Amino acid sequence: MSLVVVGSVAYDGVETPHGKVERMLGGACTYISLAASFFTSVKIVAVVGDDFAQEDLDLLRSRGIDLEGLERVPGKTFYWAGTYSADMNDRVTLTTDLNVFADFNPKLPPSYRSAPYLLLGNIQPALQRGVRAQMNGTRFVGGDTMNYWIRDYRDELLATIREWDFLLINDSEARMLAGEHNLRRAAEKILGMGPHTLVIKRGEYGAILFQGGEHFMVPGFLLEDVFDPTGAGDSFAGGFMGYLAERGIDPRQGDIRHQELRRAVIYGSVMGSFCCEKFGVDRFRNLTRAEIDGRYREFKAFTDF
Amino acid sequence: MSLVVVGSVAYDGVETPHGKVERMLGGACTYISLAASFFTSVKIVAVVGDDFAQEDLDLLRSRGIDLEGLERVPGKTFYWAGTYSADMNDRVTLTTDLNVFADFNPKLPPSYRSAPYLLLGNIQPALQRGVRAQMNGTRFVGGDTMNYWIRDYRDELLATIREWDFLLINDSEARMLAGEHNLRRAAEKILGMGPHTLVIKRGEYGAILFQGGEHFMVPGFLLEDVFDPTGAGDSFAGGFMGYLAERGIDPRQGDIRHQELRRAVIYGSVMGSFCCEKFGVDRFRNLTRAEIDGRYREFKAFTDF
Repeated sequence: MSLVVVGSVAYDGVETPHGKVERMLGGACTYISLAASFFTSVKIVAVVGDDFAQEDLDLLRSRGIDLEGLERVPGKTFYWAGTYSADMNDRVTLTTDLNVFADFNPKLPPSYRSAPYLLLGNIQPALQRGVRAQMNGTRFVGGDTMNYWIRDYRDELLATIREWDFLLINDSEARMLAGEHNLRRAAEKILGMGPHTLVIKRGEYGAILFQGGEHFMVPGFLLEDVFDPTGAGDSFAGGFMGYLAERGIDPRQGDIRHQELRRAVIYGSVMGSFCCEKFGVDRFRNLTRAEIDGRYREFKAFTDF
Repeated sequence: MSLVVVGSVAYDGVETPHGKVERMLGGACTYISLAASFFTSVKIVAVVGDDFAQEDLDLLRSRGIDLEGLERVPGKTFYWAGTYSADMNDRVTLTTDLNVFADFNPKLPPSYRSAPYLLLGNIQPALQRGVRAQMNGTRFVGGDTMNYWIRDYRDELLATIREWDFLLINDSEARMLAGEHNLRRAAEKILGMGPHTLVIKRGEYGAILFQGGEHFMVPGFLLEDVFDPTGAGDSFAGGFMGYLAERGIDPRQGDIRHQELRRAVIYGSVMGSFCCEKFGVDRFRNLTRAEIDGRYREFKAFTDF
C-alpha cells in the first residue's frame, strides 16, 4: 500500500577514508524513498532547485517513485558537505547551504492525501505536523527528528510526535529527548509522549524496538567495508516502513503484530547495511529484492541460537 | 568437567555514578571462577597476600571453588582502584599496586594438571604459556589479554595464543592485535594466528563469535541499571567457558559444534549482565542457576524474529 515520504532532497559532498565525492544525490527523503521503493509504492513530497539533474529525476522514476509532490522552484537545491573520521563513527559538517529548502512548506497533492502510510523525514516539527494534518485516513504515521529540534523546538516537537504511531531516532537523540541516559528507561519515557512504537538506531551496533511492553534487539550487519555511512539511518527508516506498508499493517484495527514490527526492523537494518556499501545512493541503483531477502536470511543465520 | 582458571585475585576500589566502594574483592580470576562455578567445578591458580580476608576465601569456597592453587605469601594483595565516567563507557585507573602479584609465577598443583579445560586470565603471555606447558591432556584452552601485552609483548603473545583454542578479547584489542579497524577482517587475521575460535566482546553492545567460517552476533542485555561494569568481561569469559566445560565439548575429537559455542556466548553474555547489576562480585553471592537460565531465555525472547 502506498507510502508518502516527506523530507529533504539534496546534493551531498562526502569524504570518507574510501574516497571523496564532490556532489551526489542525497537527502533524507531520497534515501527513505529509494529504500522503501523495494517494498511498496512511494510518493514523495520535497523541494529542489532548478539545478536538479534529469538523471536524478530519472533514478527516482526508475524506482517507480511518484514525483507529483516534488516541487521545483527557482534557485539551488539544498547542499550539504561533510567529512568522516577514520573509523567513520564521527563526521564533521563542512557546508550546509539550505538554498530552496529554507522555504520548504510541504503541500500534498490531492492524490497523496488518502495514502495509508506516512513517513516524515527530519524537518522542522511544525512542518511535519502540518503534513500530518493534510492527510485523510492515514493508518500509520511516524518519523525521525534530530538533536536541533529536540533542544530548541521541544514543545513543537512534543506536540508533533504526540500524533505519531512511531518514532525512529538514534540513541543519543533518544537520551536527549528523554533526559535519561539509560536506554531502557529513556524508551519508557518516550513511549509516554505519544508513539506506541519506538525504534532506536545505534549505527554499527544495530537497533532496538520497543513496543507493547516488549523490546527487540538486533546487532548491526558486520560489513567487510563501510564505504559511506551517509543515509544509512534514512535507508533503515525506508526499509522499516516500506516493509510495514507492503504487509498492510493497520494499527487502527489493532493490527500491530509485534513480530511484524521485528521483521520490519530487520528489513530496516538490511537497507541501512546496503546503503553503506557504496557512496551515496549508488548501492540502490541495481540492488534487487532477491539480494534484500538474502541479507534478511543472513541476519537470521548470524543471530540464531 | 573441571576447569582451571589462572589470573589475578585482587582488591578493588571502584567509583561509579551509583556509588563508591573503597575495597572489595576483585580480580580477573575471581570474576571468571565465580561465574564459571555456576556451570562446572573450578580450580583456581592465583596469589594473594597475608591481608586476604577469611570472608573472601569463604565466598570462593561456598561456590565449590578448589583453592589448592591459591598461593598465600607475605605482603599485600594486588590492589586496583578506578573511577567510571557518567555513562560508564570510560574508566580512569587511579591506583595499580601490584604487590604480591608482581612476582606471580603460577605453579599448578598436580591435581590440576589433567583438568580438561583451562582458562587463562589476562596476565603476562609468558606466564600464560608456562601454565599451558604444565597441563597434561587439556582439551580446550583459551584466554584473554590486553592492550599492554599486544603493544609491548607482541612476539611473546603470538607464541602464546598459537597454542590456544580460543581467544576472548574486546573490540579495541582485536583491532590492535590485527592492525585492522574492520572487525570482520580483523577476525580473519586473528584466526590465522592460531585460535580456531575468537570471541570479541563489545561491552554494552554485546559480542561476536567467529568460528568455522561463520560468525554469530548477540546484542548486550539492556539493563535497567548498570551499577558497576567492573569484571563484566571476565564474568563473560567464566560463563562462556563454564558452559563449554559443563557440556564436555572436546575439540580434539572434532567436537566443536558451532551451535554450542553460540550458546556459550549467550551464557557469557548472561553472566556479564548479572555482574553489572551490583558492585563487585555481589551479584554472584546469591545468584541462582534458575535466574541464569531465565535470562538465557530472555536473550532468546528479545533477539528472536
